[in-house]
Amino acid sequence: MMTDLELDRAKAQARVDSVLSLSEYEERAKKKGIPEPGIIDSLDLFLAERGIRSIQVPAGFPIRYADELRGRGYQLESKKEPFFEDRMVKSDEELGYIRDTQRKTEEAMGEAISVIRDSIVKGNLLYYKDDILTSDRIRRIIDYKLMDLKCIAEHTIVAVGTEGCDPHNEGSGPLRPHQPIIIDLFPRSTRTRYFADMTRTVVKGKTPDRLKKMYEAVISSQERGISLIRDGMDARIVHNNVSDCLKSFGFETGIINGRMQGFFHGTGHGIGLDVHEPPRISKAGYTLKKGNIVTVEPGLYYADIGGVRIEDMVLVTEEGCINLTTYPKTLEV
Amino acid sequence: MMTDLELDRAKAQARVDSVLSLSEYEERAKKKGIPEPGIIDSLDLFLAERGIRSIQVPAGFPIRYADELRGRGYQLESKKEPFFEDRMVKSDEELGYIRDTQRKTEEAMGEAISVIRDSIVKGNLLYYKDDILTSDRIRRIIDYKLMDLKCIAEHTIVAVGTEGCDPHNEGSGPLRPHQPIIIDLFPRSTRTRYFADMTRTVVKGKTPDRLKKMYEAVISSQERGISLIRDGMDARIVHNNVSDCLKSFGFETGIINGRMQGFFHGTGHGIGLDVHEPPRISKAGYTLKKGNIVTVEPGLYYADIGGVRIEDMVLVTEEGCINLTTYPKTLEV
Repeated sequence: MMTDLELDRAKAQARVDSVLSLSEYEERAKKKGIPEPGIIDSLDLFLAERGIRSIQVPAGFPIRYADELRGRGYQLESKKEPFFEDRMVKSDEELGYIRDTQRKTEEAMGEAISVIRDSIVKGNLLYYKDDILTSDRIRRIIDYKLMDLKCIAEHTIVAVGTEGCDPHNEGSGPLRPHQPIIIDLFPRSTRTRYFADMTRTVVKGKTPDRLKKMYEAVISSQERGISLIRDGMDARIVHNNVSDCLKSFGFETGIINGRMQGFFHGTGHGIGLDVHEPPRISKAGYTLKKGNIVTVEPGLYYADIGGVRIEDMVLVTEEGCINLTTYPKTLEV
Repeated sequence: MMTDLELDRAKAQARVDSVLSLSEYEERAKKKGIPEPGIIDSLDLFLAERGIRSIQVPAGFPIRYADELRGRGYQLESKKEPFFEDRMVKSDEELGYIRDTQRKTEEAMGEAISVIRDSIVKGNLLYYKDDILTSDRIRRIIDYKLMDLKCIAEHTIVAVGTEGCDPHNEGSGPLRPHQPIIIDLFPRSTRTRYFADMTRTVVKGKTPDRLKKMYEAVISSQERGISLIRDGMDARIVHNNVSDCLKSFGFETGIINGRMQGFFHGTGHGIGLDVHEPPRISKAGYTLKKGNIVTVEPGLYYADIGGVRIEDMVLVTEEGCINLTTYPKTLEV
């Protein structure tokens, strides 16, 4: 049911059975003596003419409309996320869209990393084509490349050293040698509207031994996670295995010097029309199903070294999973 | 109350009195015998320790959480949009941010229009630097320029001829001479996160007489609207005057040949941290207040000619309003 503004576009574009005019319902409500009909007056008419008294709504349905509908005698029951369970299991068409966005994401990642690779260490700075290399400059290279490829990236992360310890810090200022640089991209195709999501961590210069060990632990924990993913698997078991693996390398999680350090986020999340959607690979209880596409992105964050995170996207299959991310994992560039 | 993932960033960035750890509340809930505490278990503890039993929530508050809280005996009352009424009245700082985004929006509009101006008409196409000028090419010029200026534009509209009759059609394919081209930009600053919004309509080539008259009517109705805007004015009166003005030029609104034609959207909307926010200048009942920043964007859309829309942003003052948009209005370029 659309406003006059959107009515014809909805008729042309929406893949639904019928598109109704909100203003027609408003006219009918006025004829019934409601001088300024609101959306619920129109919805009331719509439901009444179909004999509907009981409605299932998403968990996020607005309280105001819920209260108004209940006040008119409708039974409302909310359904936990995901409202459309089909969204969790990707069709071949959707898989194609996500693969396409991922391919473009890897192109942009490739450009970013090749600039860091070709940069020159001078003191505690990196220089590329005679200019200081900054987070912003790398982010621009990525975002422009993605725009060329009909993708939009927001909040692209290029975070160096301790900046990377806050997994959502987008990063700013000059990049530094001998420190981990986390690059995390999650663009959406402006054509298909499907997202992809990937992260790599690189170092330009000499890698401290503890950082090498962190990287090794993150790679191992990711491999452990990926090896467990298959149809029917409890996602919590995957997450716990990833956590345990990081711990087995000696990397503890908790509050150290007043801030969270170690591994303090989920292992992964579903992706599709939203960048984060169910199923989640975390402490929440999801069972993985054939056709899910999920990220696997363990990380370690320590204030004295910086952050390391590696993220791939995988397609859950009957026997295991297929890694949709083909970009190599190399710490030193 | 933040997850471990966001806790330290919230402490560093949020302008609130205190940042609480969700996982601390989860631990306390576990100690009280709840094995897998949900968000409402934590919120319940938070509210209980403050003796809060009655809560005001936004109209969009999720039904699921509302039902859970009410089930535990809390009184929930929803408040109609805007929840934070202060957001409607802009501070000097906010005005500065919006002006800044607007200035950048005008720079991008200027580049787009200068390319159309410098293009050459050949048959029913426009050529610029030997290549066919398309909606996509203009949109790229705009979006890249805005990215240079630290703004992000989504859904930038460059719609030619009858495409423009659907006010939200983003436009595609070659631009055409002798037809109206609607350019509508509403970028957000990635730094301040404040939006601006502006629209211009231009023609390259010869303008049909009826289109000239449509343009004149839209300009006049916009002037009428702007002349009425001041502190204390009923926004509905502004909208009705704009509609009446368009009608007085002989332009009717309604369903013609099965589609909505004429002027079938609101006159304007508030703008700030959202691109559309209250107050609205439409059939909805808002009273304009000093410090509101609203768009004034009448339009006319006819399937045989195309669309014309002109949009400025104004700051409501005690005596009238100040137009924040300085970019000229010229139909033929």
